[in-house]
Amino acid sequence: MNNMVHGKHRRLHPVPLRDVVIDDVFWAPRIKINREHTLAYQLQQCEDTGRIRNFDKAAGVVDGEFEGIFFNDSDLYKWIEATAYSLSTYPDADLEEKLDQVIVRVAAAQEDDGYLNTYFILVEPDKKWTNLGVMHELYCAGHLFQAAVAHYLGTGKRTLLDVACRFADHIDGIFGPEKRKGMPGHEEIELALMDLYRVTGEARYFHLSEFFIDQRGQRPSVFEQEIHNPGTGGKVAHNRSHFMVGETYCGAYAQDHLPVREQREVVGHAVRAMYLYCAMADVVGETGEPALRDALEKLWHNVTRARMYVTGGIGPSSHNEGFTQDYHLPNTTAYAETCAAVGNIIWNWRLLMLDGEARFADVMELALYNGFLSGVALDGTHFFYVNPLRSNGDREREGWFGCACCPPNVARLLASLGLYAYGQSEDGLWMHLYIAGRVKVQQSGTEITLKTETRYPWHGEVKMTMETDQPVDFTLYLRIPDWCREASISINGSSQESKSVSSAYTALKRTWQNGDTIRLSLSMPIEQIEAHPNITNNQGKVALRRGPMLYCLEEIDHDDHVHGMILPEDPGLEAETAPDLLGGITVIRGKALALDRESWNDELYRPSGHTALRVTDLTAIPYYAWNNRGKGNMTTWIHKG
Amino acid sequence: MNNMVHGKHRRLHPVPLRDVVIDDVFWAPRIKINREHTLAYQLQQCEDTGRIRNFDKAAGVVDGEFEGIFFNDSDLYKWIEATAYSLSTYPDADLEEKLDQVIVRVAAAQEDDGYLNTYFILVEPDKKWTNLGVMHELYCAGHLFQAAVAHYLGTGKRTLLDVACRFADHIDGIFGPEKRKGMPGHEEIELALMDLYRVTGEARYFHLSEFFIDQRGQRPSVFEQEIHNPGTGGKVAHNRSHFMVGETYCGAYAQDHLPVREQREVVGHAVRAMYLYCAMADVVGETGEPALRDALEKLWHNVTRARMYVTGGIGPSSHNEGFTQDYHLPNTTAYAETCAAVGNIIWNWRLLMLDGEARFADVMELALYNGFLSGVALDGTHFFYVNPLRSNGDREREGWFGCACCPPNVARLLASLGLYAYGQSEDGLWMHLYIAGRVKVQQSGTEITLKTETRYPWHGEVKMTMETDQPVDFTLYLRIPDWCREASISINGSSQESKSVSSAYTALKRTWQNGDTIRLSLSMPIEQIEAHPNITNNQGKVALRRGPMLYCLEEIDHDDHVHGMILPEDPGLEAETAPDLLGGITVIRGKALALDRESWNDELYRPSGHTALRVTDLTAIPYYAWNNRGKGNMTTWIHKG
Repeated sequence: MNNMVHGKHRRLHPVPLRDVVIDDVFWAPRIKINREHTLAYQLQQCEDTGRIRNFDKAAGVVDGEFEGIFFNDSDLYKWIEATAYSLSTYPDADLEEKLDQVIVRVAAAQEDDGYLNTYFILVEPDKKWTNLGVMHELYCAGHLFQAAVAHYLGTGKRTLLDVACRFADHIDGIFGPEKRKGMPGHEEIELALMDLYRVTGEARYFHLSEFFIDQRGQRPSVFEQEIHNPGTGGKVAHNRSHFMVGETYCGAYAQDHLPVREQREVVGHAVRAMYLYCAMADVVGETGEPALRDALEKLWHNVTRARMYVTGGIGPSSHNEGFTQDYHLPNTTAYAETCAAVGNIIWNWRLLMLDGEARFADVMELALYNGFLSGVALDGTHFFYVNPLRSNGDREREGWFGCACCPPNVARLLASLGLYAYGQSEDGLWMHLYIAGRVKVQQSGTEITLKTETRYPWHGEVKMTMETDQPVDFTLYLRIPDWCREASISINGSSQESKSVSSAYTALKRTWQNGDTIRLSLSMPIEQIEAHPNITNNQGKVALRRGPMLYCLEEIDHDDHVHGMILPEDPGLEAETAPDLLGGITVIRGKALALDRESWNDELYRPSGHTALRVTDLTAIPYYAWNNRGKGNMTTWIHKG
Repeated sequence: MNNMVHGKHRRLHPVPLRDVVIDDVFWAPRIKINREHTLAYQLQQCEDTGRIRNFDKAAGVVDGEFEGIFFNDSDLYKWIEATAYSLSTYPDADLEEKLDQVIVRVAAAQEDDGYLNTYFILVEPDKKWTNLGVMHELYCAGHLFQAAVAHYLGTGKRTLLDVACRFADHIDGIFGPEKRKGMPGHEEIELALMDLYRVTGEARYFHLSEFFIDQRGQRPSVFEQEIHNPGTGGKVAHNRSHFMVGETYCGAYAQDHLPVREQREVVGHAVRAMYLYCAMADVVGETGEPALRDALEKLWHNVTRARMYVTGGIGPSSHNEGFTQDYHLPNTTAYAETCAAVGNIIWNWRLLMLDGEARFADVMELALYNGFLSGVALDGTHFFYVNPLRSNGDREREGWFGCACCPPNVARLLASLGLYAYGQSEDGLWMHLYIAGRVKVQQSGTEITLKTETRYPWHGEVKMTMETDQPVDFTLYLRIPDWCREASISINGSSQESKSVSSAYTALKRTWQNGDTIRLSLSMPIEQIEAHPNITNNQGKVALRRGPMLYCLEEIDHDDHVHGMILPEDPGLEAETAPDLLGGITVIRGKALALDRESWNDELYRPSGHTALRVTDLTAIPYYAWNNRGKGNMTTWIHKG
């Protein structure tokens, strides 16, 4: 089995995780913390909160009632997936032993017919598959499948993969064109079935994924029928309020408003949307179907041109955990769920693989370094569910959540980061992200290793060295990010003709020799970014960006109120290395203006024009790093004088 | 009975409503709509929603279950109060007959011991007075008392007053220093008992009011004991979530965090706070107690210096329908409940009566013309519960609400508006609000009528004419509003030495003759107002004000997005009469700048400095009048270039 045998309409394929070594100043310490602290911490949380005990109870090994939220199985599955990724790159016998024990407990809960969902086994065994819109059975199944695939690829063991296939076969026996109509209220199984298909080669899983995708937006909707004939009492109100507009079924919450090929606007719950679009991209990778590809293009345009935060975060509203209208991107109340940023990353990664277009890698990088990474504290054990771009001092990361989807989603993305850094096409190797380390691939029948040295994202200099036993012809594709307006490339000290443009891959086609050295220099000035005028809450404000990093102002670094600071015409902004701050970052320093509060006495409002400005110091830190020094005011958008 | 026999520590007393005639361009049409449309509409709503039927059921006249929310009695009581005020000034035999019929139905529901609350009579007769913190029994009683006082003063009939006194006596038999401890979760009965005391002279009502006020903030709290020993099942969670902070009782939601004399910050539910402070002011009017007066002063300072919108609206948060922190006054999500603006008006009116300080009249006027009046549409039958200062186009007034406190609160304030226009002290007559019409008072033993002619609030010229059968010595106090920086006064054409300053009453002491004419000229330039820098969401923005009127921009009047418009250094703002617009208003016209969207193509964010500005027309309308031409974007705070 090989995850490159499928995807005939994809130009790129990922490099297996085990062949990527990350050894840099930025990610390596985070992945280490993830491996050494986060995984153990989250396993303990899954034990303490009954998430694993639910499996023991479902297996009949332990007495007691189901604990927690009805979709809690999925959190454990994501932990398994994360741990399996970690074992791919960092073998660890103790951790593998713990993982195996957990998998034994999961497997024990599976019923004879392959069914596996501890909530329904324990609480409502006669209500299985009766409330697909709300009860997340198919969603949990999907996370089981992804965990199983990761476990198999990471350890070679089939223990969980067999469980997954039996459950997938069970589901495939129920749902399908000639069988029962249905689909998940929360998408996930669609992309997981594609993963399962790629690793097993079992075409039924691919067809079942397609079936679920194609069900969406059909009328009458499965979910609407469920609302009128509810199967699971207590959860139906939730269903109703999210799926209905007054007395009319809408379905946009779960992207069930239109058939997927007719969808043009990103709507509803953002994580659901992203997971659906991921699966759609995977299907296009198999079929090349233009209508589905076109829908993806329109959806991508809508989100990146009108519904995405400058951090790459998406889904502004807490009401639906999702999308609202074009240009509605409030900062203080931004929902921008960490899981949605994960979704944005993995969707763009899948789109990137279709044609190798750099614009998808740009969004992937943006979300990765900003809107996703803000989801986890430097300590690896505190998490944001919601990622506002402005805080009035009341926000802080938490150790865990009742609905704990985000923490293990962070863990699995960090543990699998290597997957996103490189790509491989028939003719060459693609550098998506610049991360110091090594990648080992076969090119033209020869195994080569490319070594990368860089202090990216703090510096734009990247040095790559080719290691090969024999000369080999292939193209090295180097990504020039959208934020970079001046890039230069040299090979073995000789400058290449600069055809590089922003947001494109530069193709270096040649016969590579052992020891060949490529130097890439990406200009990384500090830029003041403005938002489209239609995002009216950002009008008159700018955000600071340097390289892939978006910056913010935190109260702790300032004498003045950060929400009131004004960037003058010439703020003298300079990047400065701060090795002892927040794990080692590059800060931006400069001058700002602040309103002189001293002139205000006992008034709340007064005629304008009487408030003086004075000069004050400004220090901006990377957005992802905020709230690691206690609560406080924070802003990404700064008044522009 | 006379509502001037009490209040020995009040400098001012109101002029009875029946002695005030309002005959102006601004309020008279609104009061007419209130009388001719709103009252009938709301009576129908009270019938249709079962609010009146609940009384028939409680009386045993009709079968059936209690309908609606447990405190729905209060809405009908407020309608009775509004109707009674209307009858004071506009006798109407048909309306009086309808009112009498309603009162008969209310009275029939009263139990033999005086108890009257249809929810408890019908639903939980054995749970009376067991959950004071949540169940609003005392709150509903208070609205009954206010309705009864208004009915008695307006019609001379004791039918409802007797019902009220019997219920008040019943309550007085249960609660008190030597009896049971207790107080309302939602304040109201305190101020209502003061009204009942003033009209009946019954000191027990005054002492019971004082008792309820003094209970607040005592420990152990009555409400905390109820949480641990709940009386009414379904409502307890509500209680708990609002009164507890984690496992600790707080009580701030209902101002039960501290004894009232120690309270310095306005906290919790805004309407509750206002009604409590009203009663505290009434008690100070009786006792002159310095500690209570001082608490009121601190609370007034806190709200007006840090927690009030520029509209006079208060209570920014929907979470607690109330106050948060100093300077936290978000615009889009502003709660600023209409009832809270009513509370702000009636509290400041009570404070004003203590010493005759103009600052209280200033706040009263501000809230009246802006944050209160926005609560009702020009048609008199659509209402805002919540009054945002900025809309993204999704807000509109509604005909009624499940929790319908605001609509009848609007009706009773409009019907009693005359009460707020004038005041009387031992030495003279006070002009608080300038409204064309007449007031009849006794001064120095002589009945005089003062006639007022003005086109206020659109124009600052006010002409007053004295009508008296004989010369009479007294002082005429004319209020110079806080927003006015140039005022001039002449008597019989002769200019008075201008001692007038903003936010003060000018005292004109003389022997007045029949036909004496006083002319007041209040300068009313258009002003650009800025907010205290600590209200960071208003930074870089101004609000337009002219006279007492705050203005706003509505989408319908503009080609450009109102949220993006920028007021230049010299916008050439001019006031212009628009007799056909929105019932006849004065608009503000001028020039603004708008970002040129044409230069934006397919980007959501880009380096700043490339967006041109172009000149566009600006039309501002009074804030209260917004959303009378359909939904649309609206803003009160405008970017300042």
